[in-house]
Amino acid sequence: MLYPEVLANAINSFKKLPGIGEKSAERYALATIELSDEEIDDFIKNVKDCKSKLRRCTECGHLTDKEVCDICNDTNREDNLLCVVEDYKSVFMFEKSGTFNGKYHVLNGLISPIDGVYPEDINLSTLKRRVDNFKGDGEVIIALKPSIEGETTTLYIKKILEENHIKVSRLSYGIPMGVEIDYLDAITLDRALIDRKEIS
Amino acid sequence: MLYPEVLANAINSFKKLPGIGEKSAERYALATIELSDEEIDDFIKNVKDCKSKLRRCTECGHLTDKEVCDICNDTNREDNLLCVVEDYKSVFMFEKSGTFNGKYHVLNGLISPIDGVYPEDINLSTLKRRVDNFKGDGEVIIALKPSIEGETTTLYIKKILEENHIKVSRLSYGIPMGVEIDYLDAITLDRALIDRKEIS
Repeated sequence: MLYPEVLANAINSFKKLPGIGEKSAERYALATIELSDEEIDDFIKNVKDCKSKLRRCTECGHLTDKEVCDICNDTNREDNLLCVVEDYKSVFMFEKSGTFNGKYHVLNGLISPIDGVYPEDINLSTLKRRVDNFKGDGEVIIALKPSIEGETTTLYIKKILEENHIKVSRLSYGIPMGVEIDYLDAITLDRALIDRKEIS
Repeated sequence: MLYPEVLANAINSFKKLPGIGEKSAERYALATIELSDEEIDDFIKNVKDCKSKLRRCTECGHLTDKEVCDICNDTNREDNLLCVVEDYKSVFMFEKSGTFNGKYHVLNGLISPIDGVYPEDINLSTLKRRVDNFKGDGEVIIALKPSIEGETTTLYIKKILEENHIKVSRLSYGIPMGVEIDYLDAITLDRALIDRKEIS
């Protein structure tokens, strides 16, 4: 065997992470040897805590280490503006862009009968409750991916929120930035045409 | 703050590893959440063991989780053929190429008076003892990098082994595989010329 057993085990563990192959796993495992005792203790504690202390926000379903997440608790954000997303990764994407000042609702899945995922399997009931509690006018922006599951879930949400008489919108589909129109797929181009905006 | 604290901490820990930037660290920290409890426990145990159980082989100085490493204990390897390397990474490189069937001697450093590293600071005394114990003829191959420190250390080893009357060699310098001669540096080309081999 090329490596001492404990080193081979560490290499295998690093390979469990996405996009880490043999070469990188070796590099990271060897690097842990060079870290100070304090750094390695921190590393272990942080990875452990990350796995064990993170849970779903009881309000919106986002990742948090508290009962209710920092975003839901932020009084500077609009309560009557909800952005519905598939998972916590979408929340991080929106937060990095920094444009959105409402709150989120994380479904943790999309409706997909073919995969056995029905409306009751994703975080929808609390969405309805949150919208019922809107004070005055409000809006729900649905930001799901343009796929059959995304469309199905979007239409379902639109339907269950009908009686609330609030605005329900979705992100615009269209041409991503920095892309040559010549190389776009036909469906994207078609969507961009349908979602076209008047130049004012 | 964009991330829950425990997630931010895990991201920072991953960033301690070489070549991992913000983007990759995020990806790995988020991936740890998706690992099963068993996988994460293994991950933590393996990283911990890798740091705490690995030590220097008392015979050759290589990384091992035993008193004497597997290579030194391998009776199929020649005892009278030692390859002297700077660090354990060189051993792994040689072992991957698989050509060498002797044993190693890992210096864990190179002589560099300017940096305050003297012969007694690196793993040299056991090298002398090992060579003294050679049974019959033997050879020491010095495989250090071609730098001032590498050359200094090579000459020093040559000197301390003089009284042993064994063969002391070094790796050939020359042109690496797959490289355009036009783009080689002058020193490498010069070395390749000096170390030229007769075509037989």
